[in-house]
Amino acid sequence: MSLFAVINCSQLVTLAGSQRPRVGEELRELSIIENGAMLIRNERIEQVGNREVIEVFITADCEVIDAGNRTVLPGFVDAHTHPVFAGTRAGEFELRASGATYEQIALAGGGIRSTVRKTRLASEDELVAAGKRYAEWFLRCGTTTVEAKSGYGLTVEDELKMLRAIRRLNNETPLSYVPTFLGAHVVPDEFKGNSSAYVDLIVEEMLPRVAAENLAEFCDVFCEAGAFSVEESRRILLAAKRLGLKLRVHADQLSLSGGSALAAELGAMTADHLEQADESAICNLQSAMVQPVLLPCSVLMIGSQRYANARAMIEAGLAAVIATDFNPGSSPVASMLLALTLASTQMKMTPAEAISAATINAAYSLGRGKEIGSLEPGKRADFVIHDCDDYRELAYFAGLEHPSAVYVGGQLVVPGEKMTSS
Amino acid sequence: MSLFAVINCSQLVTLAGSQRPRVGEELRELSIIENGAMLIRNERIEQVGNREVIEVFITADCEVIDAGNRTVLPGFVDAHTHPVFAGTRAGEFELRASGATYEQIALAGGGIRSTVRKTRLASEDELVAAGKRYAEWFLRCGTTTVEAKSGYGLTVEDELKMLRAIRRLNNETPLSYVPTFLGAHVVPDEFKGNSSAYVDLIVEEMLPRVAAENLAEFCDVFCEAGAFSVEESRRILLAAKRLGLKLRVHADQLSLSGGSALAAELGAMTADHLEQADESAICNLQSAMVQPVLLPCSVLMIGSQRYANARAMIEAGLAAVIATDFNPGSSPVASMLLALTLASTQMKMTPAEAISAATINAAYSLGRGKEIGSLEPGKRADFVIHDCDDYRELAYFAGLEHPSAVYVGGQLVVPGEKMTSS
Repeated sequence: MSLFAVINCSQLVTLAGSQRPRVGEELRELSIIENGAMLIRNERIEQVGNREVIEVFITADCEVIDAGNRTVLPGFVDAHTHPVFAGTRAGEFELRASGATYEQIALAGGGIRSTVRKTRLASEDELVAAGKRYAEWFLRCGTTTVEAKSGYGLTVEDELKMLRAIRRLNNETPLSYVPTFLGAHVVPDEFKGNSSAYVDLIVEEMLPRVAAENLAEFCDVFCEAGAFSVEESRRILLAAKRLGLKLRVHADQLSLSGGSALAAELGAMTADHLEQADESAICNLQSAMVQPVLLPCSVLMIGSQRYANARAMIEAGLAAVIATDFNPGSSPVASMLLALTLASTQMKMTPAEAISAATINAAYSLGRGKEIGSLEPGKRADFVIHDCDDYRELAYFAGLEHPSAVYVGGQLVVPGEKMTSS
Repeated sequence: MSLFAVINCSQLVTLAGSQRPRVGEELRELSIIENGAMLIRNERIEQVGNREVIEVFITADCEVIDAGNRTVLPGFVDAHTHPVFAGTRAGEFELRASGATYEQIALAGGGIRSTVRKTRLASEDELVAAGKRYAEWFLRCGTTTVEAKSGYGLTVEDELKMLRAIRRLNNETPLSYVPTFLGAHVVPDEFKGNSSAYVDLIVEEMLPRVAAENLAEFCDVFCEAGAFSVEESRRILLAAKRLGLKLRVHADQLSLSGGSALAAELGAMTADHLEQADESAICNLQSAMVQPVLLPCSVLMIGSQRYANARAMIEAGLAAVIATDFNPGSSPVASMLLALTLASTQMKMTPAEAISAATINAAYSLGRGKEIGSLEPGKRADFVIHDCDDYRELAYFAGLEHPSAVYVGGQLVVPGEKMTSS
């Protein structure tokens, strides 16, 4: 049995006290304990409090970890990622820098389709090996749980291969993966002009196999002109729902696609992207309390300047989530820290709102609100010691890997010292 | 005597072959050696080539460092930073996220002036201690030389204190600092409404002391409405020039201030910021081959969407430089990697142009073109092993600290392994 205490936290940012997604003013309330400490037994948090409260429990068999007057937060929960794929698209990144648009590249056979070609050719082992590199990045940046989508296979076997790779990554790395089936990412080339036949394949073959092998908790659809219509998306999501999967929707990213309304209609957990969402789309989300998942890194990386209207969503009482959208095309960004910076500088979320959106709200959006996302007794000991004494510095000092130590289930997975001399 | 070889570099990005800032098409030519290797004797590069060429020189007394099929680049040269200051401005960052503008905060006594108040109260030792934290960040992100400005003292003694702190940081950390006197950063409160008296103080007292103690190589002026007029800036820069200092100018940042024209008139090495620079301003720079120093991180961090017109400058044949503008207000960003990402996504510089702008061009802008900024025989062995096999990934996989090892003058200063397990 393992027992240890973490003491000397300049700010223990607990985000405690919510049994539900935080809304409105509560977003500003991070429940910070100054000079905070925690007691960890095995993989769970046992006690949280200021130093005096916790010191009472420090017995001879209790290891003590001195946080060195640093800020301690729950591990980030990244609620929208595509972390399994073969190859990179650095060449397309270069083309975009030379003036090509994301749409032009997609029309020329690049974009998602080029990753699909490479991913189909890759073995499960190769996907796992590539995925481990990215798992390290997530952890180094302080993320301990990611939602992970399939969607670069687009055949029955290749989608299953991706989901099995995600399951292996969950078992073989310290990072926790929440699997999402995204067979409806794009219509693959072999179904060009015949998307309804591809929807048939998803509904009749892919989804039953995914459910039978218990390979996904969620089903997601890219509801967008050029991808899947509202009608097609509804058919897929309803079939998924009947099989017991929970729902997420890529909505209103490139156009006002009707994705938000569909997410509300079907009681999806989240509607994601929402860069084009207007007042009426936000009303739809509000009517069903669908959580908006905002993805500022992809806006930055494709060179767009149109970010989602986070302020309107927060003011509508929605428990906003921010995520990286990590993927090889529009958002090769694994850092929730960069997402925090963009949330504050581009979407005018306060640092506190952004932290809530990156932890407790994200955990609820994955159905994990009682397990992770805050530092409270009983929750899993997924926490990060960040090398600063004020949580606002995480977003403010941008572009750094702030964690000096990352713990998952009470185990140290990213160590402290980074420099040999300075 | 120390001798070692670095082998197995997937790409050795040498940037060799230029005795001057690169212009035009040459920007696309990074002189990459695939399967590259280098021989380092003491603090200098002795040989560069492919593996076969270098292996001939590997004798028994020669240590061999295996780069593990990673990309090796010169250390970044960050040609515009303000890395010495007391306190942070994370509180203002929060205010800006809540909707306040940079100008509103400055008018309310915040902004640069608040850092001036804290910096005046700090001792030289305190400034050095704070500066060491930032030196570690620069190095971790692969920067080995920074230009370092004063400008938060604004009294004779406090400006000298800052420049002495910079000198100590240069001696006490592995990072190289190129000192710039920026007494003309803002008009301090005690000279409010009497800027000409403050200019007198700069010209008659500060500059002679700075020159006599040999505390700066460059003089810079913030030429902007609300800071120093063109006439005031000219007076200061001419005085500096007479004392043997080289010139840089904060130009055309918030308005078309005339700073570019002044930089050209006086033969400044650089004009910096340039977000508002129009065709005529670019013509001025071109006429005197003044290097533009572009600062995309500060644009991002203040929430502006107006980046400098890098394409027009490059097409005018100017050897563009990118830098972080690291400072506690408008750009708390020490990562040249993030600057590369913004250069490509927001200013449409190709990854190759951005790398040139961050290394060899930056070195020339600091008068160090023959000493650093490329990997060529005779140059100082300031190089970085980045954990990727394609240099384009440095900008593409954004928000990470890519270096797995950083060497300054042939000495390892940032070590390899970051994870305990994954």
